[in-house]
Amino acid sequence: MAKKHENHSPDSSIENAALRHAGAILSIDLGALQKNWRTYQTMVSKSKNCAVGAVIKARGYGLDARHVGVALGVAGCKTFFVASIDEGIELRSVMGDDAEIFILGCPIGGNEHDLVHHALSPVLNSLEDISVWKKFSNSSGLNAPAALHLDSGMNRLGLGAGDVGAIAKNPDLLSGVNISLVMSHLACSDEQKNPMNQEQLTSFKNALSSIGGLGGVRTSIANSSGVFLGPEYHMEMVRPGVALYGVNPTPEKANPMAQVVRLQGKILQVREIDTPQTVGYGATHKAAGKELIATIAAGYADGILRSLSNNGVAYVGEYPAPYVGRVSMDLITINVSAVPENIAHVGALVDLIGPNNPVDDMAARAGTIGYEILTNLGPRYGRVYVGGTDK
Amino acid sequence: MAKKHENHSPDSSIENAALRHAGAILSIDLGALQKNWRTYQTMVSKSKNCAVGAVIKARGYGLDARHVGVALGVAGCKTFFVASIDEGIELRSVMGDDAEIFILGCPIGGNEHDLVHHALSPVLNSLEDISVWKKFSNSSGLNAPAALHLDSGMNRLGLGAGDVGAIAKNPDLLSGVNISLVMSHLACSDEQKNPMNQEQLTSFKNALSSIGGLGGVRTSIANSSGVFLGPEYHMEMVRPGVALYGVNPTPEKANPMAQVVRLQGKILQVREIDTPQTVGYGATHKAAGKELIATIAAGYADGILRSLSNNGVAYVGEYPAPYVGRVSMDLITINVSAVPENIAHVGALVDLIGPNNPVDDMAARAGTIGYEILTNLGPRYGRVYVGGTDK
Repeated sequence: MAKKHENHSPDSSIENAALRHAGAILSIDLGALQKNWRTYQTMVSKSKNCAVGAVIKARGYGLDARHVGVALGVAGCKTFFVASIDEGIELRSVMGDDAEIFILGCPIGGNEHDLVHHALSPVLNSLEDISVWKKFSNSSGLNAPAALHLDSGMNRLGLGAGDVGAIAKNPDLLSGVNISLVMSHLACSDEQKNPMNQEQLTSFKNALSSIGGLGGVRTSIANSSGVFLGPEYHMEMVRPGVALYGVNPTPEKANPMAQVVRLQGKILQVREIDTPQTVGYGATHKAAGKELIATIAAGYADGILRSLSNNGVAYVGEYPAPYVGRVSMDLITINVSAVPENIAHVGALVDLIGPNNPVDDMAARAGTIGYEILTNLGPRYGRVYVGGTDK
Repeated sequence: MAKKHENHSPDSSIENAALRHAGAILSIDLGALQKNWRTYQTMVSKSKNCAVGAVIKARGYGLDARHVGVALGVAGCKTFFVASIDEGIELRSVMGDDAEIFILGCPIGGNEHDLVHHALSPVLNSLEDISVWKKFSNSSGLNAPAALHLDSGMNRLGLGAGDVGAIAKNPDLLSGVNISLVMSHLACSDEQKNPMNQEQLTSFKNALSSIGGLGGVRTSIANSSGVFLGPEYHMEMVRPGVALYGVNPTPEKANPMAQVVRLQGKILQVREIDTPQTVGYGATHKAAGKELIATIAAGYADGILRSLSNNGVAYVGEYPAPYVGRVSMDLITINVSAVPENIAHVGALVDLIGPNNPVDDMAARAGTIGYEILTNLGPRYGRVYVGGTDK
């Protein structure tokens, strides 16, 4: 029988306990997030009537949509995009009534009442979606707004050319449906010279005009990278997402965004090894001689992708320390032979993501993109939010 | 201003709403989990005094440690291993006092009171850990148990040969410390013929005898795959983890475990494309002719690893449907050209993980192991737990 000792709990502060218990600390700079949003405001300031929305799906790209939403709201953002109804409900619970929340892709049929109950606007991606929302608008007597998504080449979600043609032929398909935004989505906007960008913009404009512009309703095509393609892409709303969180929206150039995320793992143990010893599962790292190995309390269950095995780089202060051996579920091992011992000690914090190894850097080493690094940030981290309360 | 409509909320059942809102449904068969645990019981039944523990770290390998812990407790499991103190606290909150809970690798100094308050036993991985726990044992007057981890070749956590030598020379280092289990961990147990297995077993036994066996305290070295290496690896405790959740512990042979997980994504939209159209980000899939593409409401933010881009396979009923284009954050696109239309319709459920494409299969396609697929299972799924209440 396990024996509990009730009177041994000296620190009841939940936040302090979480930081003390956790193997790694995730710090999120909400001031930098706001700064990035304002960078977009400046970029579109010459485009008349262009608002800057924010995409905060996937738990605010792993950073917690509630914190992110509130901080962006303080900065002045009024329009938010999330992926699912439950994400919308969570966001609405912390936002005022002046926040406009769109659900990008969700099952609509059967969920109409839940959507309007929380003042969430679905994005209508197909003629079926339109038909469902129209039916509900008629039967409920509510004039609840929705966005209309015209596909311009992604072929993922949105009305195709045939659907747009059907509406052009029969505008009644949309009558009685309160469309508050018409949007499309770019497939290759991170490649500034890719001709597909212009093709998609033209396709979107042609589709819009073929259905009569819907009486001046707001239009939007630009995501984080799309805004950098020029003012013709700004329209009445831009929808930055990943760049707000510090990922480079212009991968061909230097990163114009401020860094939002720092991830610091705790050293649990330091050991010396020597030939012929090996490290970790599958014995994939073989000591080349005397080496000092530090074990860090974070692994692929925390979003340190296993593809970083023998390939990632941590920083102990200003000293790089390469990952050695496979990333395990809860632990990674790094080579700290070149790091002064008074820095690489048990309990020290090591940058897994930081000034010297930002999100994009980890992504490149893992063979993926910063988006996946962010959305994989795990639930076990002790989380610290700083800033974000200033307008 | 967004307008809420309070009287539109027809289904207040939280569970039903979650399933209706979600883009994908994760079904977890707790009966199969119990069956897998019993498979291990049968395997060790001839090894005298050998207990079967369970590793349920990383939120029970993504399946929720509370559900997993309770179901295994019902089956008869009494010893559990988790990775962090907070995982231990969560597990303790649903388990009775007869459950023994070990924390595999955590910062111990500063957390001693929190550990004993919740009756959690730390695994001592170093001489420093031993010293911290000894000091606390002395000052608190509590005889709180801990496990001792002797490294036998992983070089990740645990006492090295030098540390064991120090204890052999000076047994007083351990006096006053209540060691209830001595453990080690295998690096290559999934390769049955790898000589490192026998080397680690020998190393562990030698280390144990050099410190005098600690008066008959329980010993343990076998993880999921290690149990299959033979009875000499069973000792007094085996610690299966991933195999309990259906991953093959004997990758060189057929999988002896029952499948625990099924993941079904909802079709949001079906569209026909044709040359020269492309699908998704970077336009990486080019239509080879007329193709029918279904968009599924799950993406890499849900743990569908981005490395499955143009490489995964879903099943629509018994029909395989390959992933086409890149996996995006919240969506994947699959080619359903070869699937009868009455099956591949909007709203239909598609197996992302299922009888035809189990966890191990998805892992191989993603270039990883089943462990990472499980721990990446995301928070947005509607979750359904079945079975697990029978002894």
